[in-house]
Amino acid sequence: MEADREGLHRPTDPQSFPLREADSSASCPTSERLDFPVAVVLPAGGSGERTGLATPKQFCTFLGRPLISYTIQAFERVTWVKNIVIVVANESLDLMKNIIQKHGHKKVKVVLGGPTRHRSIFNGLRVFMESQDDSQLTKPKVVVIHDAVRPFMEEEFLLKIANAAKEHGAAGAIRPLVSTVIATTSEGYLDHSLERTKYRASEMPQAFLFDTIYQAYQQCTEYDFEFGTECLHLVLQYCGTNAKLVEGPPTLWKVTYIRDLFAAESIIKENLSQRACVITGVHQEAVHLTHCLQKTLAQSMQVDTVSTWHGSDGSSPSTVLENYNLIYISVNSSSFHEINKLVETIGNTALPVLYPVVLIMDAEKWNDAVENASVIALSLIKDRNAALTGQMFVV
Amino acid sequence: MEADREGLHRPTDPQSFPLREADSSASCPTSERLDFPVAVVLPAGGSGERTGLATPKQFCTFLGRPLISYTIQAFERVTWVKNIVIVVANESLDLMKNIIQKHGHKKVKVVLGGPTRHRSIFNGLRVFMESQDDSQLTKPKVVVIHDAVRPFMEEEFLLKIANAAKEHGAAGAIRPLVSTVIATTSEGYLDHSLERTKYRASEMPQAFLFDTIYQAYQQCTEYDFEFGTECLHLVLQYCGTNAKLVEGPPTLWKVTYIRDLFAAESIIKENLSQRACVITGVHQEAVHLTHCLQKTLAQSMQVDTVSTWHGSDGSSPSTVLENYNLIYISVNSSSFHEINKLVETIGNTALPVLYPVVLIMDAEKWNDAVENASVIALSLIKDRNAALTGQMFVV
Repeated sequence: MEADREGLHRPTDPQSFPLREADSSASCPTSERLDFPVAVVLPAGGSGERTGLATPKQFCTFLGRPLISYTIQAFERVTWVKNIVIVVANESLDLMKNIIQKHGHKKVKVVLGGPTRHRSIFNGLRVFMESQDDSQLTKPKVVVIHDAVRPFMEEEFLLKIANAAKEHGAAGAIRPLVSTVIATTSEGYLDHSLERTKYRASEMPQAFLFDTIYQAYQQCTEYDFEFGTECLHLVLQYCGTNAKLVEGPPTLWKVTYIRDLFAAESIIKENLSQRACVITGVHQEAVHLTHCLQKTLAQSMQVDTVSTWHGSDGSSPSTVLENYNLIYISVNSSSFHEINKLVETIGNTALPVLYPVVLIMDAEKWNDAVENASVIALSLIKDRNAALTGQMFVV
Repeated sequence: MEADREGLHRPTDPQSFPLREADSSASCPTSERLDFPVAVVLPAGGSGERTGLATPKQFCTFLGRPLISYTIQAFERVTWVKNIVIVVANESLDLMKNIIQKHGHKKVKVVLGGPTRHRSIFNGLRVFMESQDDSQLTKPKVVVIHDAVRPFMEEEFLLKIANAAKEHGAAGAIRPLVSTVIATTSEGYLDHSLERTKYRASEMPQAFLFDTIYQAYQQCTEYDFEFGTECLHLVLQYCGTNAKLVEGPPTLWKVTYIRDLFAAESIIKENLSQRACVITGVHQEAVHLTHCLQKTLAQSMQVDTVSTWHGSDGSSPSTVLENYNLIYISVNSSSFHEINKLVETIGNTALPVLYPVVLIMDAEKWNDAVENASVIALSLIKDRNAALTGQMFVV
């Protein structure tokens, strides 16, 4: 069958696209730690009308997980973030609670939002004042406000923003403008265009000394609550605090349109395909084949090898099950029992919601076909296509 | 094997994502025609530094085709666009000529760019003045200027912009601002934020009366050529022409970051997966199975059926080969010869560069498994994974 042979030269091909925008799957603890308490407020009440979908975009699901869960995870990975307050609309309350339970989120508290974004954020902040007896919530020195629909927040940048807020009272992420911004006349004609170098797009996260932003909300008007756009603006107006602006990475972008959902899914897939672990078994031939396979795969991902997937006690799955895409090499049917056991173990484990793909190969005399095998293995890992689960492939 | 069963609930699952951002594959001629000549200038000299890739993004390839070729195709489909002038840097000249030849672009002329965007556009405009004896180039009444990295341009919107330019002298696409725009102090603090309702992002395409934009370029200064940002601004300054601003669809977005390449690839895949044709053959059982298959597939795509893929003369491939993803139903091995012939024909045809996926299924007694078969067929069509070419799947 002739088909899209050239389809390989696609964004997921690392030769054409050597750079990753983010690595959301890897846990990269910064060596620097903060010596003051930090909490996060995550308003998640948006309706997502710009995607044109019935489901608000923060609840759109890919790879078995709603977008907001990826965002929560990005903060949970940061050890110095103590609490994450998620503010949702009443109609999303049950859904949000289910998501938290299903995906095992630990640091979160859900509160009800208000009719506007500012009221929702204020509700989120208030729980720290009202819950003095709730030992799980610590009133933070610095509070970070983020969007539920910006899942690729990186610890390093969060650290910058939190430190800047501690020092200056407020800090916000900015990005260069992608398009020229123009002022329009009321009749829909060009009035003038702005000088791009003087302006920036205001993004998230933003961070504040808790007392500063809380005070700003206590003082602000009904009009601010209804029509105000920027928290940064409120602290300037009511507390005289000039926010420090920090240029963030492009990964801070906000999922706004359907194309952004596509992009987010692709980035997450890409991130989940960075590492594979080949389980060789002990057969000499399998070890040899692993070397060949590794040589090809290593152009696209980090490949480690182990001889067995289980721990020293012979039963508990080792960390390979939780951190890697797995490739099991088997040179003869004698390992059938072993494979069965592996599959069973994975089935029984509350495995990380990142869904490692398990690939098991029957590897008798495939020396010649090792390149084909690598290409298929790689594509199965990258595409994570559930419809192909259980299929046998010929190389 | 347990794996990502929930992976099915992803953006490409039409139940979660019922809306398409664009349909670049379908040819949708507007019934309205323009009664004046229109040409396009496509500056394509950008270095694409924001993606961080070695290849300028207009030349990044997915599904076997560089991004710029999708953009050219979007204009070539529009019958009332007469010429497309592509302005490239010297180092991309050969690459561009190869792309044009390989993908069969017809209406294009390639010219060399200058050191800045404005000089490149002016070079593109000049060919219409200099080539009076070149019968292939018609000096247009209206010239459209677009970006090579905005591949999802729709005819309907282009019509609006061209008509507005004819009437007002100049017209430009705008979009609402996604982020708040803020002015920064020279020390990096917030100065003020702009009132979002008064401003718009200026996008492409833009269109002009040819004589107006040409005159503006003839009069403008060295400074304009070096640092000017907007053609709209030049015609205002030098010809007193107030551009009409027209709000465009979100599909006008510009491929800027790696995530945009991911998104573009996903949208193109989605667009290529809108239609399938099931070739039933004449067996009663195959016709019955087709009905079952169609029922499931029709939730995700338009499914048509034909009894045979070849034309009445028994040899030439009919239009199904060029416009559909194909699913061939075979209920017994007697159709093996027929399948072989189909495969051979596809191989010999200069098939559309849109790469229809060919799927051939051996369908003896799979009444029970028809749902599984549909899921696999659908995922093969949607993923267009070349690594799986020639594989047999068990349902």
